[in-house]
Amino acid sequence: MSRYRFEEAEHVAFRKSLRKFLEKEAVPHYDEWEKERLIPKSFWKKLGEMGYLAPQLPEEYGGLETDFRYAVIIGEEMERVGASLTGVGLHNDIVLPYLESYATEDQKRRWFPGCLTGETITAIAMTEPGAGSDLAGIQATAVRDGDYYIVNGSKTFITNGIQANLIVTAVKTDPQARHKGISLLVMEEGTPGFSRGRKLDKVGMHGQDTSELIFEDAKVPVSNLLGEENAGFSYMMTKLQQERLMVAISAQTAAEDMVEMTLAYVKSRTAFGKSIASFQNTQFQLVEMMTELELGRTFLESLIEDHMAGKDVVTKVSMAKSWITEKAKEMSAKCMQLHGGYGYMEEYKIARRFRDIPVTAIYAGTNEIMKVIIAKNLGIQ
Amino acid sequence: MSRYRFEEAEHVAFRKSLRKFLEKEAVPHYDEWEKERLIPKSFWKKLGEMGYLAPQLPEEYGGLETDFRYAVIIGEEMERVGASLTGVGLHNDIVLPYLESYATEDQKRRWFPGCLTGETITAIAMTEPGAGSDLAGIQATAVRDGDYYIVNGSKTFITNGIQANLIVTAVKTDPQARHKGISLLVMEEGTPGFSRGRKLDKVGMHGQDTSELIFEDAKVPVSNLLGEENAGFSYMMTKLQQERLMVAISAQTAAEDMVEMTLAYVKSRTAFGKSIASFQNTQFQLVEMMTELELGRTFLESLIEDHMAGKDVVTKVSMAKSWITEKAKEMSAKCMQLHGGYGYMEEYKIARRFRDIPVTAIYAGTNEIMKVIIAKNLGIQ
Amino acid sequence: MSRYRFEEAEHVAFRKSLRKFLEKEAVPHYDEWEKERLIPKSFWKKLGEMGYLAPQLPEEYGGLETDFRYAVIIGEEMERVGASLTGVGLHNDIVLPYLESYATEDQKRRWFPGCLTGETITAIAMTEPGAGSDLAGIQATAVRDGDYYIVNGSKTFITNGIQANLIVTAVKTDPQARHKGISLLVMEEGTPGFSRGRKLDKVGMHGQDTSELIFEDAKVPVSNLLGEENAGFSYMMTKLQQERLMVAISAQTAAEDMVEMTLAYVKSRTAFGKSIASFQNTQFQLVEMMTELELGRTFLESLIEDHMAGKDVVTKVSMAKSWITEKAKEMSAKCMQLHGGYGYMEEYKIARRFRDIPVTAIYAGTNEIMKVIIAKNLGIQ
Amino acid sequence: MSRYRFEEAEHVAFRKSLRKFLEKEAVPHYDEWEKERLIPKSFWKKLGEMGYLAPQLPEEYGGLETDFRYAVIIGEEMERVGASLTGVGLHNDIVLPYLESYATEDQKRRWFPGCLTGETITAIAMTEPGAGSDLAGIQATAVRDGDYYIVNGSKTFITNGIQANLIVTAVKTDPQARHKGISLLVMEEGTPGFSRGRKLDKVGMHGQDTSELIFEDAKVPVSNLLGEENAGFSYMMTKLQQERLMVAISAQTAAEDMVEMTLAYVKSRTAFGKSIASFQNTQFQLVEMMTELELGRTFLESLIEDHMAGKDVVTKVSMAKSWITEKAKEMSAKCMQLHGGYGYMEEYKIARRFRDIPVTAIYAGTNEIMKVIIAKNLGIQ
Repeated sequence: MSRYRFEEAEHVAFRKSLRKFLEKEAVPHYDEWEKERLIPKSFWKKLGEMGYLAPQLPEEYGGLETDFRYAVIIGEEMERVGASLTGVGLHNDIVLPYLESYATEDQKRRWFPGCLTGETITAIAMTEPGAGSDLAGIQATAVRDGDYYIVNGSKTFITNGIQANLIVTAVKTDPQARHKGISLLVMEEGTPGFSRGRKLDKVGMHGQDTSELIFEDAKVPVSNLLGEENAGFSYMMTKLQQERLMVAISAQTAAEDMVEMTLAYVKSRTAFGKSIASFQNTQFQLVEMMTELELGRTFLESLIEDHMAGKDVVTKVSMAKSWITEKAKEMSAKCMQLHGGYGYMEEYKIARRFRDIPVTAIYAGTNEIMKVIIAKNLGIQ
Repeated sequence: MSRYRFEEAEHVAFRKSLRKFLEKEAVPHYDEWEKERLIPKSFWKKLGEMGYLAPQLPEEYGGLETDFRYAVIIGEEMERVGASLTGVGLHNDIVLPYLESYATEDQKRRWFPGCLTGETITAIAMTEPGAGSDLAGIQATAVRDGDYYIVNGSKTFITNGIQANLIVTAVKTDPQARHKGISLLVMEEGTPGFSRGRKLDKVGMHGQDTSELIFEDAKVPVSNLLGEENAGFSYMMTKLQQERLMVAISAQTAAEDMVEMTLAYVKSRTAFGKSIASFQNTQFQLVEMMTELELGRTFLESLIEDHMAGKDVVTKVSMAKSWITEKAKEMSAKCMQLHGGYGYMEEYKIARRFRDIPVTAIYAGTNEIMKVIIAKNLGIQ
Repeated sequence: MSRYRFEEAEHVAFRKSLRKFLEKEAVPHYDEWEKERLIPKSFWKKLGEMGYLAPQLPEEYGGLETDFRYAVIIGEEMERVGASLTGVGLHNDIVLPYLESYATEDQKRRWFPGCLTGETITAIAMTEPGAGSDLAGIQATAVRDGDYYIVNGSKTFITNGIQANLIVTAVKTDPQARHKGISLLVMEEGTPGFSRGRKLDKVGMHGQDTSELIFEDAKVPVSNLLGEENAGFSYMMTKLQQERLMVAISAQTAAEDMVEMTLAYVKSRTAFGKSIASFQNTQFQLVEMMTELELGRTFLESLIEDHMAGKDVVTKVSMAKSWITEKAKEMSAKCMQLHGGYGYMEEYKIARRFRDIPVTAIYAGTNEIMKVIIAKNLGIQ
Repeated sequence: MSRYRFEEAEHVAFRKSLRKFLEKEAVPHYDEWEKERLIPKSFWKKLGEMGYLAPQLPEEYGGLETDFRYAVIIGEEMERVGASLTGVGLHNDIVLPYLESYATEDQKRRWFPGCLTGETITAIAMTEPGAGSDLAGIQATAVRDGDYYIVNGSKTFITNGIQANLIVTAVKTDPQARHKGISLLVMEEGTPGFSRGRKLDKVGMHGQDTSELIFEDAKVPVSNLLGEENAGFSYMMTKLQQERLMVAISAQTAAEDMVEMTLAYVKSRTAFGKSIASFQNTQFQLVEMMTELELGRTFLESLIEDHMAGKDVVTKVSMAKSWITEKAKEMSAKCMQLHGGYGYMEEYKIARRFRDIPVTAIYAGTNEIMKVIIAKNLGIQ
């Protein structure tokens, strides 16, 4: 439990108590949540009570001022339970940082308390039907009208989309411009003209609610503008790095879990009178996966250090995100195969991992986008 | 629709009318069947009425005496609708051939009529919990007691397991022997001591019913023995070739369908102001998949010819099964990725293909077993 | 020796006597030729005497009017000896067809006799320094001046470049045009202003002479124009198909040879007290390679049939060329590795195969170009 | 030049002056050395004069007591010039450590001085014809006869085999035992009964001399026994870790060099009127390679730290060796392909890299052996 060079005693203790909490409060209910396709709000509140929501917030707002290592621990421990708890990490490490960096004092006072207790569940709405990973090409518009922005358009694939009551939403405030015409508005539940589409039916991550959002002359107070008008694209480019890093951490954790369960499986089962683990093909497949896991984990550790030190990590984050998620996908197929027929049965956890993992290669910027970014940064053009 | 060198006008016409039939009778209901996790018996009966069940049977029993090309056509057209129709091919091309080759005249008269009308749905029960692809290691026993065999044990992963009313079942009649102690008994619905376990919850193939079968002192009349006692293993080794060939044909068809839908998708969608199809990465990925499809299809055609000519195809069938199913799995992941976020949504057909395909690398003998067989046949040991 | 469905008794006999001839006249000298970096003209003459040069030519010119199956046999048997005999196939199946299709009666009378006896060795000069696979972009110019073309420019990577005395040379006769400004001139040894650059030092194919050609006001008689002026590009596009097919056939043959020698090696050597062939990793690697060989071979056979039937094979040839050469490259590395330290020693034939094979993925159009062609033909753009 | 977190100013300076030295004393002669298949002794002496030979030795013996980071720097800078300088790293970091750990004070006084000046070139002789990576199975015997061991047998693939005048040689002193019957004897030039076989002709590493060694009643004084009798296997197991680590470092450096030269190539060349670097296929291939380089480099850094801290690195070293050398091999083929026809020409450095790299996956224990070790250490059996 203390893999990390940089983990101190307090981190180890934190991980231990979080794991214990999850084993009691999440693991026994997880299958149910998957069936209901929702993590209940009551669980969010328990997380809040325990201090697991946005613990990085300054003490003056009620936070614990934890460093990024705690975010890593929370992300990993949630993922160990299952990919459907991703929404918590999204809330803590992806949406909150926008508010931390760009919200006014006033906005912080309004929004932070609920985010800490779990009363407020957050989301971020960038992707639109038809635009995919092309953020500069978004079409939702916000037109200033007195003290309000009138928002029209729609978003899709929004994690926490059904339950979120505070949604950082990217809109075009200058339709003539591409990158330089985007602003971030905070859309609150109950905003007139804002509705949610249906809950999307996904291959995996069944407990996690994903949906479309619809804005028809939605009336958002100007006081809900985040940061400066038309600066949204650069805000997103900045914050996307931590988002992608969190995706890589989740995929790494998921892959470690897959290989661990597969190792246990092949050691416990026999075929042709021998342990499945004793076949050289099984051994080499597992060895190759474990080698990749070790490389991925070492790379992530180094990257987390760089990220905490405030270095420019765009290239390395893009590498970690694309390589680790791709490997995790490959491993899910190999691990399923090593389970034989059981791997195809939902009662075996590898089945769920296989269905959950592919989205990590897609969201937060597809792996193809990652490669375009790397090529640009390394001057290959 | 007439890819095959060896397809004649009557085959083309047959395929055309079958496709038309399926577009009317299967396609509109398929989503419903997936939700209900069952292909209804009424559909089986329609198939029977149209002559699509066991058409290869001799005319004297009511069959059409079609050649194997018709089996290929039925297998492909069912797969085009969806992998959950696999059970039909299992009935026609995998179970029936056991009866054709090893049943007595009397048995044929009893069983063929129902198999032709769809009154009788068949299955084959080889795999046991814990034995996997190791057929010689099966544990279910049949002990002779007067005019009956008393059968004890269990089977798992049985396709058509819930609906089948005639099940060719592999049992040990000589527990001391491995290969040479296996017999095939025909287990009929209503046999005392025979029950079905729960319907298994699988990653994909949701409309296809898979289940466990349980035998507790099940009483099977000796007149239900298929062929000779203790000759079952060699019967299975013979018949498994066509089973594996049918799996390869299905996987090839599924892969062709995936690439076709992906090609349509990338041509219809844009990113960064360009058609997704215009990116060189998209093009090369599709070209590489289409190249593999062409190679796989050509190999299958040649193999079908050899199989129809009665040649020994064990090595080549094992190659086709392992290579094509592996490639189809890889393609499912690549095609999903090329769909971006939509590929992860159940409403896009690629999502279902991704969940359906992995089992083809497992059932009818895992791909690892295929490689062991090839190694042995080619003298690499 | 009679793998092919379509090979008749006379083909089998032809292959047998050719193999016998090569075992006597080529195999014992091959190492020497590799060291001297040249196949001697005396060997060409022996080939001519035996009727192995341009046997497809019409009887009226002294040929044997053999069909394409003989070309396949010659290509394969030369490759079995070693990749440095590639120049013979180039002469027979790549250069001669230009003369067969586009030469005037007069030109045929002048050139065919030498091509049959081996007095005349041919080459084709398309690639230029800097232009690579982009044929439309060639820069060598030919300017009409009375009864002559004055040619300036240079060519590179020319197979048979040192020994050829008749070189089909692509030049720009209309410098304003791209595709439509190219003509083919036959450059003969002794042409004033034509010289050869140095023999190029290659990673492999050491016995095969590759060089640059230099044209400085080279004076080529107008009577050496092949076909029509400015029609050269379409001639090349037509003839490149057979060239690429021959490359695919060579690479397939080379790969079969690699796997055969590796199989023999692993069966004859032990490690840790067991035959290397008995390790499951060895078995699976070989099985996977043999599966790919079987697929490649079957695809080629089907393609050869289509080519002989005069079908449009552009897409399939591009598939065969890119897939088979890529796989052959991969196999060369795997087979070397299975040889352990001996695989890295020149005295083991796998070492030479490893150095010889990579160029097949490059010449006659790189595999990347093949993919661009396939994409275009399949409408992915 | 200062990639490493842990490199201090003095290391940076050391690397800089070493690189300058090599640019003057090695780079201009390297092609010549490759042709002559030998690094001249005069170069070894220059290295000695500059303090680049065995700098880690204690000051009392004339060394500089440098830490392992200097070994890394020397290994990398030699590799940057070319793989044929590998023999220097072998001398410094692989053979000398045996003497440092197991030689008596007396032996140190006899041997260290020459090792520092370059008068003495060392080698290590483990592998035998027929035994490959199976060290416990070696067959060379040493029988005690008074003050001498009488050695019989042969060794092969010995780096520095032609020039070495001090060779640590593994022999069986107890032929009944496997692991526990092996001792290390120091074989010196001029030992009666010791001769060298021919210089081996390898695919690459042409400037590096590899040979067989032959012992026919070779008479080695008992005072040349290294450490204790029959303890040789455990000595080798210990020292092999640094050897494998050095191989991984070399392969990583070679791969970085390949990608660097390929990046420069694709940016400087055009095809179809565009820079080759502007094709998305080129970009993605390079991005994927650079990502793997980054992962490999980060893993190596972490491993070097662990090794310097004296941790048990057997599993991670085996992972680094097998993964990095495999990736480097793959990259050599991809980089060659990206060079087009020029990649196949010896005048382009990628050609040499392609020929040099495969042996890294074989020597110091094949990658298959690495996987067996990892499997055992991770309990997969």
